[in-house]
Amino acid sequence: MLAVLKPEPKPGAEIRNVAIPKIGPTDVLVKVKVASVCGTDLHIYNWDPWAQRRIHPPLIPGHEFCGNVAAIGSEVTTVKEGDFVSAEMHVACGTCFQCRTGEAHICQFVKIIGVDTDGAFAEYVRIPESNIWKLDPEIPQEYASILDPLGNAVHSVLAGEVAAKTVAITGAGPIGLFAIAVARAVGATTIFAIEVNEHRRKIARAMKAAYVLDPASEDVRTIIMDSTAGLGVDIVLEMAGHPDAIRTAFNIVRRGGRISLLGLTSKPIALNFSEDIIFKGITIQGINGRRMYQTWYQMQALLKAGKLDLHPVITDRISMKDFGKGMERLTTGEASKILLYPNGVK
Amino acid sequence: MLAVLKPEPKPGAEIRNVAIPKIGPTDVLVKVKVASVCGTDLHIYNWDPWAQRRIHPPLIPGHEFCGNVAAIGSEVTTVKEGDFVSAEMHVACGTCFQCRTGEAHICQFVKIIGVDTDGAFAEYVRIPESNIWKLDPEIPQEYASILDPLGNAVHSVLAGEVAAKTVAITGAGPIGLFAIAVARAVGATTIFAIEVNEHRRKIARAMKAAYVLDPASEDVRTIIMDSTAGLGVDIVLEMAGHPDAIRTAFNIVRRGGRISLLGLTSKPIALNFSEDIIFKGITIQGINGRRMYQTWYQMQALLKAGKLDLHPVITDRISMKDFGKGMERLTTGEASKILLYPNGVK
Amino acid sequence: MLAVLKPEPKPGAEIRNVAIPKIGPTDVLVKVKVASVCGTDLHIYNWDPWAQRRIHPPLIPGHEFCGNVAAIGSEVTTVKEGDFVSAEMHVACGTCFQCRTGEAHICQFVKIIGVDTDGAFAEYVRIPESNIWKLDPEIPQEYASILDPLGNAVHSVLAGEVAAKTVAITGAGPIGLFAIAVARAVGATTIFAIEVNEHRRKIARAMKAAYVLDPASEDVRTIIMDSTAGLGVDIVLEMAGHPDAIRTAFNIVRRGGRISLLGLTSKPIALNFSEDIIFKGITIQGINGRRMYQTWYQMQALLKAGKLDLHPVITDRISMKDFGKGMERLTTGEASKILLYPNGVK
Amino acid sequence: MLAVLKPEPKPGAEIRNVAIPKIGPTDVLVKVKVASVCGTDLHIYNWDPWAQRRIHPPLIPGHEFCGNVAAIGSEVTTVKEGDFVSAEMHVACGTCFQCRTGEAHICQFVKIIGVDTDGAFAEYVRIPESNIWKLDPEIPQEYASILDPLGNAVHSVLAGEVAAKTVAITGAGPIGLFAIAVARAVGATTIFAIEVNEHRRKIARAMKAAYVLDPASEDVRTIIMDSTAGLGVDIVLEMAGHPDAIRTAFNIVRRGGRISLLGLTSKPIALNFSEDIIFKGITIQGINGRRMYQTWYQMQALLKAGKLDLHPVITDRISMKDFGKGMERLTTGEASKILLYPNGVK
Repeated sequence: MLAVLKPEPKPGAEIRNVAIPKIGPTDVLVKVKVASVCGTDLHIYNWDPWAQRRIHPPLIPGHEFCGNVAAIGSEVTTVKEGDFVSAEMHVACGTCFQCRTGEAHICQFVKIIGVDTDGAFAEYVRIPESNIWKLDPEIPQEYASILDPLGNAVHSVLAGEVAAKTVAITGAGPIGLFAIAVARAVGATTIFAIEVNEHRRKIARAMKAAYVLDPASEDVRTIIMDSTAGLGVDIVLEMAGHPDAIRTAFNIVRRGGRISLLGLTSKPIALNFSEDIIFKGITIQGINGRRMYQTWYQMQALLKAGKLDLHPVITDRISMKDFGKGMERLTTGEASKILLYPNGVK
Repeated sequence: MLAVLKPEPKPGAEIRNVAIPKIGPTDVLVKVKVASVCGTDLHIYNWDPWAQRRIHPPLIPGHEFCGNVAAIGSEVTTVKEGDFVSAEMHVACGTCFQCRTGEAHICQFVKIIGVDTDGAFAEYVRIPESNIWKLDPEIPQEYASILDPLGNAVHSVLAGEVAAKTVAITGAGPIGLFAIAVARAVGATTIFAIEVNEHRRKIARAMKAAYVLDPASEDVRTIIMDSTAGLGVDIVLEMAGHPDAIRTAFNIVRRGGRISLLGLTSKPIALNFSEDIIFKGITIQGINGRRMYQTWYQMQALLKAGKLDLHPVITDRISMKDFGKGMERLTTGEASKILLYPNGVK
Repeated sequence: MLAVLKPEPKPGAEIRNVAIPKIGPTDVLVKVKVASVCGTDLHIYNWDPWAQRRIHPPLIPGHEFCGNVAAIGSEVTTVKEGDFVSAEMHVACGTCFQCRTGEAHICQFVKIIGVDTDGAFAEYVRIPESNIWKLDPEIPQEYASILDPLGNAVHSVLAGEVAAKTVAITGAGPIGLFAIAVARAVGATTIFAIEVNEHRRKIARAMKAAYVLDPASEDVRTIIMDSTAGLGVDIVLEMAGHPDAIRTAFNIVRRGGRISLLGLTSKPIALNFSEDIIFKGITIQGINGRRMYQTWYQMQALLKAGKLDLHPVITDRISMKDFGKGMERLTTGEASKILLYPNGVK
Repeated sequence: MLAVLKPEPKPGAEIRNVAIPKIGPTDVLVKVKVASVCGTDLHIYNWDPWAQRRIHPPLIPGHEFCGNVAAIGSEVTTVKEGDFVSAEMHVACGTCFQCRTGEAHICQFVKIIGVDTDGAFAEYVRIPESNIWKLDPEIPQEYASILDPLGNAVHSVLAGEVAAKTVAITGAGPIGLFAIAVARAVGATTIFAIEVNEHRRKIARAMKAAYVLDPASEDVRTIIMDSTAGLGVDIVLEMAGHPDAIRTAFNIVRRGGRISLLGLTSKPIALNFSEDIIFKGITIQGINGRRMYQTWYQMQALLKAGKLDLHPVITDRISMKDFGKGMERLTTGEASKILLYPNGVK
């Protein structure tokens, strides 16, 4: 089969012919219809320090996809050939304390398909039955390959109360953009999107954030304080991972508010604990993955009800063989969410 | 001043000239612009058994209103003459356990203005400063007199998680109808309104409930089970107080779901605790009043953000002198929320 | 092997020689060391209406036990022969909405070992690997067979906040008695045990409830109001399932309090919803089984820390062949928790 | 009256004769029986950078005390002359968003008696009626002056679930020591106290922490991992405010755990957000003051029930005139909680 392969520990990737994965008794083989590209894939492509530590080539990346079941293992009972499916790509161990207490999304021994084992940038991908998500036919098909990052957004937004609250989102990459839609759908009142890249701000406006702010040219804190009766925002969803964005998050959250951190940082960042956290009595949460499988049910319910318009985020549809060009457009920020078709765009 | 007066312990009420209330140092006198009529006012008018136990005439009823501050007591600091205000009409004692632990809405010694003391069906009403709610100029004025029942709806809907959940509302009086709007605004996915009165079902459709069901002619449980993959609804908001509606509530809620009870009942109702509650692992909540003052902030935020269209519920605008006619239209269900103008409709 | 067998649909049970259960690839065969007897087993023995509906003889009852692994299926990895184990006897389907969202204890398709399939009143019992609970060597062995009902108590107590709160327990069967110990261990301040049976009240005193009340001869409500500054109790754990106890529960809970219902009822019970639930703003929860597996971790942690003294509840230790005599002592209330030894008391 | 006075903006304090405070209509004048000394008082005494920014001499410090009502304002109704009382010394504005939504402990406009206005290191102190806490006669009198810091401990421990969980406390000053007692009382299983000062470690042992660790000589992380099956602790209560302690907090908390921050820091501290917070999915809370007045009710309930033995923390009882000597013993760590008697130790 054709696949995007990272053959060696160095920058770049190749389109190669490789063997179709073999499945065991509890596995499902899925013929990939659409895969989509995440910032993580760019890190792997660029072979940055994180990728150098975590990735062990040869590897087929890709952890966002949808497709049809091509074959099932002998013990698989919940799906059959032909079913249209996506999957949770965090494979939890199932037996650790976190897994047995409803916190599998922070399993101690998690393996990520497309990061730790071969992923979905290929004609076929192997998935354990437990992780398959059978797609409800009422979910718009164009969203079927982006449930993984949409799940990050849903998990972040719903990690605390949000109805009738103000929300600021720092960083308008695909997850931040999805979070605008999710927060609107579940009753956030005023949404502020804060982003330095003009391409991304343009999409944030299309997603109907009430305020789209450029921290390079606008006084974000003053604008937010003026718009919130001097309180600050109830909730900050930090999705940039940049020191300036994190600084902003702590500056704009109100006393008693919540900061949910999703954006990964590459360096330590200094906080004034007394002023930033303690006197304000705020709550800070680390957000990882998606809850298994509450987040998936929540996503499905919101999508089926037509509560989420995510079209502006899908900027590119390309053939898998043009993977390298996609990486270029991601780097400049011109592309937001890129859909990848293993056998050409249909 | 002109007022609706219940002069004696018997059915009916009169339009009378009475003295303007005198205010103490911590009171505010408000010139009523619009008052609105609640089902409770109909109970008082009809002098039903509840009213006979609770009401001590002479009494001016009315506990939903907006107006402008006409005078303030010597120690009042938070409002001034001319301010446009509404008020929380449950006057909590401020010193009991519930009041001192953030549960003033279930104060042990609460007094309700318009029920226990003279209310807002008059040209002027006296309100303690602590209970005044200064109206944000961005809130649509047509909604300013209905914040009390809207608050009941907001409190009911937000008494648990609601985002991405299905909601059934049994009873489509004004609070049930408002609850449709609130639930939609905060991310409920499918909303079922269940109501026997055709006038009310018509308004429920205008409020955009996904399903508006007549329990007299439709198999409510089957329809709901079919629409929820056999699960039942996540949340039931019981706003009818009728035994049949309560029976329905327990029949349609899913395992692990929530029933929030607001509708007052007049007789004991039998439950099969094992089957209805324990095996299903559900949660049942008694909902009383509005949280002071979280609910008010939530309402204000939703209204300012334009998230609630409540117009279909406001069916009648009448002059205070026509109070009796309003009572007739409430009785048949032709009227839902009636706005009352002390000095004639403007 | 020897087993307690219910051979036919009629009262009673027999000690019989039956085949040792065969295990599949994901099963574990456990040699039972101690089993313990639950009120459910008495219902089955007496063949009451509930048993007639639910039980399909022939059946080996018994769902509380500990023992050593005697054999494992070919795919079992988490335990090995000789391990000392107990088990969660509610076998959840693993794929329904409740199972996939952390609510497996209210699985739609649950099967209970010892109720729906052969149980632990035998020399050997078959358990799916997923349900095995490997016993920490620091847990006192004498408690290893009673984790199932202790789990009911832990789940009930910890179904809401309990620290620094007052707790009333209606019904002092084994689970109610365990709940006294658990509530004390996690910071309940004053504990009231309410029970009509003198044998049980005696044990409740040994468990150190602050007040042990006989509703037949004492004015429970007055005593509780006097002891709680007129508030009522913060939490009622209803573990009797009797109409009088349920009535008491609603009479003694404070405004804003919680009633957790565990005791199964056989007939409908009437409530005055307005007075009992709505005006008081209380929360009522149905409690079923134990959370999988949070409750097990909580139990284990409390037992390891020496926070629970459960000895007074274990009144009888008998040989399996004397099962019938045990049933008699349960009926009179002389026995509370009976330990059953398949091969004679050691 | 005699008082400890900070007359000028420089180190030290003096015992002086000053005028008894005048009270307004809503104030209560309390004759101080015992006051106790907080670390904050040492900062004020030493005139450190924080004190230089916050304190405006002349000032009488002191914000922990008990005493008897000596006089009441004309509008005071809830206490009378002679009543034995303590007080919440954070005077909240009562009208800001936080105050009106049950979050008065993080009021935007809070004033602290003994920091912003004259406090309790004097024969008399003036307190607004709203802040008076009437002491239940069943509370041990020796604890009546230390409810303020005990409240910090109770608020920290109960800021999340704690029953059946492991707890580490970094920093064993008086609040950290109280937190040991509180955590034990509400069902924490294993408690680790981490403290560099030997005097304080000695008291931590007397408070019955399971492990008392010296981070200067012991490998705290390894010991904790070994004692928690490699998980880390469920909860860290950070009460030192020192960079090393904060670093330890993040190193020892388990995936999905909670860190509650109370100890004030003087300099920014760097965190690796990805590793420390996001991948671990932890929650961090800023803890400020005490909840008004839930924390007070919780404290009272725990003390009345005899659940807290705080005696080891009270190391010194001195006459107010020896205030300077007390400051010396606090500095070395020899003294933990010092009780101060305005008219000599009784």
